[in-house]
Amino acid sequence: MLQQPQRALKQPLHPLSRPGGRWRYIPWVALGSLLIFCPAAFAQSATTADLKVALDTAWVLLTSFLIFFMNAGFCMLETGFCRSKNAVNLLAKNLIVFGLSTLAFWVVGFGLMFGDGNPLFGTSGFLLQGADNSPAVGDAYRGTYSALAWAGVPLNAKFFFQLAFAGTAATIVSGAVAERIKFLAFFIFSLLLVGLLYPITGHWVWGDGMLANLGFYDFAGSTVVHTVGGWAALIGAILLGPRLGRFQARPVAMPGHNLSISALGCLILWLGWFGFNPGSTMAADPLPISHIVVTTNIAGALGGLAATVTSWIYLSKPDLSMIINGVLAGLVSVTASCAYVNLGSAALIGLVGGVIVVFSVTLLDSLKIDDPVGAVSVHLVCGTWGTVALGLFSVGPGSYSWYGGDGPLAGLFMGGGIQQLLVQLLGIAAVGAFTVTFSLLCWLTLRATVGIRVSEAEEIQGLDLGEHAMEAYPEFQVGP
Amino acid sequence: MLQQPQRALKQPLHPLSRPGGRWRYIPWVALGSLLIFCPAAFAQSATTADLKVALDTAWVLLTSFLIFFMNAGFCMLETGFCRSKNAVNLLAKNLIVFGLSTLAFWVVGFGLMFGDGNPLFGTSGFLLQGADNSPAVGDAYRGTYSALAWAGVPLNAKFFFQLAFAGTAATIVSGAVAERIKFLAFFIFSLLLVGLLYPITGHWVWGDGMLANLGFYDFAGSTVVHTVGGWAALIGAILLGPRLGRFQARPVAMPGHNLSISALGCLILWLGWFGFNPGSTMAADPLPISHIVVTTNIAGALGGLAATVTSWIYLSKPDLSMIINGVLAGLVSVTASCAYVNLGSAALIGLVGGVIVVFSVTLLDSLKIDDPVGAVSVHLVCGTWGTVALGLFSVGPGSYSWYGGDGPLAGLFMGGGIQQLLVQLLGIAAVGAFTVTFSLLCWLTLRATVGIRVSEAEEIQGLDLGEHAMEAYPEFQVGP
Amino acid sequence: MLQQPQRALKQPLHPLSRPGGRWRYIPWVALGSLLIFCPAAFAQSATTADLKVALDTAWVLLTSFLIFFMNAGFCMLETGFCRSKNAVNLLAKNLIVFGLSTLAFWVVGFGLMFGDGNPLFGTSGFLLQGADNSPAVGDAYRGTYSALAWAGVPLNAKFFFQLAFAGTAATIVSGAVAERIKFLAFFIFSLLLVGLLYPITGHWVWGDGMLANLGFYDFAGSTVVHTVGGWAALIGAILLGPRLGRFQARPVAMPGHNLSISALGCLILWLGWFGFNPGSTMAADPLPISHIVVTTNIAGALGGLAATVTSWIYLSKPDLSMIINGVLAGLVSVTASCAYVNLGSAALIGLVGGVIVVFSVTLLDSLKIDDPVGAVSVHLVCGTWGTVALGLFSVGPGSYSWYGGDGPLAGLFMGGGIQQLLVQLLGIAAVGAFTVTFSLLCWLTLRATVGIRVSEAEEIQGLDLGEHAMEAYPEFQVGP
Repeated sequence: MLQQPQRALKQPLHPLSRPGGRWRYIPWVALGSLLIFCPAAFAQSATTADLKVALDTAWVLLTSFLIFFMNAGFCMLETGFCRSKNAVNLLAKNLIVFGLSTLAFWVVGFGLMFGDGNPLFGTSGFLLQGADNSPAVGDAYRGTYSALAWAGVPLNAKFFFQLAFAGTAATIVSGAVAERIKFLAFFIFSLLLVGLLYPITGHWVWGDGMLANLGFYDFAGSTVVHTVGGWAALIGAILLGPRLGRFQARPVAMPGHNLSISALGCLILWLGWFGFNPGSTMAADPLPISHIVVTTNIAGALGGLAATVTSWIYLSKPDLSMIINGVLAGLVSVTASCAYVNLGSAALIGLVGGVIVVFSVTLLDSLKIDDPVGAVSVHLVCGTWGTVALGLFSVGPGSYSWYGGDGPLAGLFMGGGIQQLLVQLLGIAAVGAFTVTFSLLCWLTLRATVGIRVSEAEEIQGLDLGEHAMEAYPEFQVGP
Repeated sequence: MLQQPQRALKQPLHPLSRPGGRWRYIPWVALGSLLIFCPAAFAQSATTADLKVALDTAWVLLTSFLIFFMNAGFCMLETGFCRSKNAVNLLAKNLIVFGLSTLAFWVVGFGLMFGDGNPLFGTSGFLLQGADNSPAVGDAYRGTYSALAWAGVPLNAKFFFQLAFAGTAATIVSGAVAERIKFLAFFIFSLLLVGLLYPITGHWVWGDGMLANLGFYDFAGSTVVHTVGGWAALIGAILLGPRLGRFQARPVAMPGHNLSISALGCLILWLGWFGFNPGSTMAADPLPISHIVVTTNIAGALGGLAATVTSWIYLSKPDLSMIINGVLAGLVSVTASCAYVNLGSAALIGLVGGVIVVFSVTLLDSLKIDDPVGAVSVHLVCGTWGTVALGLFSVGPGSYSWYGGDGPLAGLFMGGGIQQLLVQLLGIAAVGAFTVTFSLLCWLTLRATVGIRVSEAEEIQGLDLGEHAMEAYPEFQVGP
Repeated sequence: MLQQPQRALKQPLHPLSRPGGRWRYIPWVALGSLLIFCPAAFAQSATTADLKVALDTAWVLLTSFLIFFMNAGFCMLETGFCRSKNAVNLLAKNLIVFGLSTLAFWVVGFGLMFGDGNPLFGTSGFLLQGADNSPAVGDAYRGTYSALAWAGVPLNAKFFFQLAFAGTAATIVSGAVAERIKFLAFFIFSLLLVGLLYPITGHWVWGDGMLANLGFYDFAGSTVVHTVGGWAALIGAILLGPRLGRFQARPVAMPGHNLSISALGCLILWLGWFGFNPGSTMAADPLPISHIVVTTNIAGALGGLAATVTSWIYLSKPDLSMIINGVLAGLVSVTASCAYVNLGSAALIGLVGGVIVVFSVTLLDSLKIDDPVGAVSVHLVCGTWGTVALGLFSVGPGSYSWYGGDGPLAGLFMGGGIQQLLVQLLGIAAVGAFTVTFSLLCWLTLRATVGIRVSEAEEIQGLDLGEHAMEAYPEFQVGP
């Protein structure tokens, strides 16, 4: 890997043949000593480039570990928010989903998303075979100078980081379809989502595809990850129908069985976002990653505070499940724009997200759409809001030193006109239309073949016994 | 950001006009090749400085993520140690507290603590506005050569790291006032603590303030973080009074409802300390961070072992809650001195902490001070011990290569006399006096306005229903 | 630590005495400017070497934090898989075990394992005293060029990384002997395992000992860590005998009390493996760490999928405890070979591990060996499989650029003949024979002295009351 500049040393130092005045030797001596010392400098300069790659790789991998850990966050969040009779099923789904994602994204997804191809999808790089074709999509992460860095870390590091993202999209679905979906249907849908649906729209935005070419920006995936997972979840939840007894004359609350693990899940997800957003630079560039950590955290904090206060006023009590979803709402909301907005805007974006999520949960109830954990409100609604917010609050190219002139146009509220906002809306619509259509197709196919909903008897008894023949807490008395 | 040494290349290479003997060309050829190759070395050397900033920033951010995750640790620890009827309240407090800390520290706290100002408090940098004034407090972390590094990472990275610390101080309070405090009172007190109380004494020690000028040392916050949180917790616990039924003829144990999540919380906190202490170098300096990881871990390990054995002898059984608090006691105890003591001293400091904490818990009981989770014993008592221990065991300046001549004087047991010990005691007293006074003021004001304690009926029923209208484990049958 | 190239500057720049033609000055001017600018390059090049050490140290420490966190993973996994009446005991064991490991490995273990000595054990470096003798075992991690890096990070960083490994071996035992072992017996056995047993066979493989000299390879410890923990666990489980009522006419399932925390534990362990395997490079070398992250993850994913499908077919339902153990089986299986095999081989190795573990659990049942959490199947059986798999799938030296000609021979299925496989089998046998013999000796001595099994009455009542006089969930109704 190292170039071998030491060879320079092996060039024999030709002896002086015609000695002149004594001072004439000085340049020779000096040169000689330079030639002796400089190779060290050369060797080190090669190592300097290596070091940047090494540091960026370590950063990408360590942040991807945090994103991977979001699986534990979703697992705890969703399981705690549902009833104990379905806990094993939720744990099993959330555990196996990263295995499924790994298989699907390795074999097909990564190639479709990041391989060379056309503006609609990639056509190479399946099974990570072939040359590292990602430099060909070097401007996939448009708008940051990490475009360079995208090509700067090993293919395996890029793959694992993107796999962790893809896995997130699949876990989002899990919560919305909980407590009534067949394990096998979820199993297959996850493969389809991570192998086909997610990578294709992902290619449009991050794979140098058609939306990237139009100037659509989504830094870390409010649209690419969260609305895609959210749309798939919404369609699934609608097709499945609500849980038995969920909507009588009025909505019947079905409280989660273990809010301790839900709160833990929320904090694990908050932690994971410090991988999700700043890791999306794909390089340990100090200014952007520091900025993104702070915008991300401020939005999450304000989202949590806003949901607390909103539920305090609107629902009369500071509702823990709303605090949890408020934090997540703030984090989802700032994901698209975390690198492009100032701290004040991030606070506002998160705050609005935290308010929206409370009302969105209520709205879905009134529409009789049953989403046991609020996944649609958090990921689809706030993901959409976050993508729009970029068109409102982006500071514009050149405002942060790491943009290098690239990046989204200034947003509507930042004196930049409506253009970026319109492109954002177009992107939301395009991704939404595709994901709704094809996830509908997937869900309908599954319904027609393996079936998607468990029997009424099984649902009443709990999916744990029906699908897994075991209980999560067999010793504890539950009831009445 | 990059210097532009490439300009050297633009100096036209003057052609030789008077060729002399053939050997005379050699210096020219050699120079030419040097001029061709060296710019790369120059460019790389510029990048080398960038790389150090990038690496230090990555280190500071990654360790701050670990510290952030301590919120999950405190959340699980405290919730598990309390009764299930108050679990939602504890989860909500521990979840929202980092949101509150973010708001308070961003708007006010960071400026008060690290902004330029006077020896008592900073007067600039509110809302992170204005120039990065932290270089002006470049010797804030006196005693390590990370003083330089303090100025070496972006302001946003410094802010987030310090925010994670500030959040810790607030979570300490949460446990001691648990199971009887009004949610709103805790909400407001957290804002005051993180916005005002913590930053002011923090400025004295880490913000180039009056205690720093006197030679007081507290590497990672035994005093600055743990005793401040501990004092505020103690005053709150005293003013609130004990939980109903806690002290009858003799203390009545009120066992925690879920020791599984408490043990998890302890391990998360142990993990978080690997951010807390070695991250406080603010730079990835290999020798100090490695040393600090090991002193920190040895102290935590010995604290846990000491509390196990002490409780085995003294309480007749190895008590799990004592093992948990012993580990934390060891970690808190070494926090002040982790960079300044050798491994053997660290072991002794942790061991003493682990013994102290067992007796401190008993002592508080006999004083009828009700601290449901042992926060005062762990954070205040062991934080004080740890600050004293620095004056006993510090190896003195120059003993470790990273001191560069700075750092605390040698401690009393290391042949250094009593001077450092006296300064440490002075610092403890000053911080304690301020924090007791002003947290008393805050608590009394809250008691006189919004009230601090829930009604007796609500306490008996549980705060979850009273404050949040929900239960943590609604399906499980609880109670005798 | 810094070379001091600045001294070059101190060579006085002799004035020109006999000026020649005007062009003759040029080399002087150029040399002068080089001498002015180059010292910066020299200084930076020194810093470049420092930076590599700093980055590698940060990598080693951060990955060791992930490995440390595996204690939380084992703690949750094992506790959840057992019955609630023994939960406190399991939590206490899993919490104190890292404290015990720290003490034993600091005082004795590290010196035995990595100190200079003979091919059987090290004889220096106890209490981390003396010179950093690890360069003397610079080729301990044979087969990667991290041999150099092994000497390249501070001793304390090496120690902590290896301590985290050693702690893992001890936690493996905890699960297999659960629900019937005396706390004191486990306490002492852990000290013996981490202080003596583990380091000695560890020295053979990683301490430049006899197996390393024979060409045995085990990159991150399928044999060194997992089979050692597994053998000690197996002997303990056999000597203790099964739990009361476990084997009647046929095996009686004793389901775990809390699968939520078990699933969490599995995900924490999966996360920890991203420290365990890629951290074992001991350097942030971008190509190997990226490759190892992906092989590790693919094996874990395929292990989980294989166990899911196997249990679906063979046990008729996708069993959550099998999914959990399948993921771990895949991870253990690839640990020996993660740096030496391609992605397809890693998938196959993990898949086979996931199938094996299901049948192994059944086999142990039929042998009436009671292992409450499946530790023997996961760690011993799959650790052995993983060590064998290296001899089957290793791509051979030179196939990956980071080998530098070293590394295991090509495996049997990769066209390399049977030699590496035979050496692997020899290593498995040697480590197994030693560990069985000496852990048998330890367990028998403990049985003859402090006793290893609790009384029948205590076992029926639960170890929590008998050993710790407390309950994990005192408020919740358990039964019947």
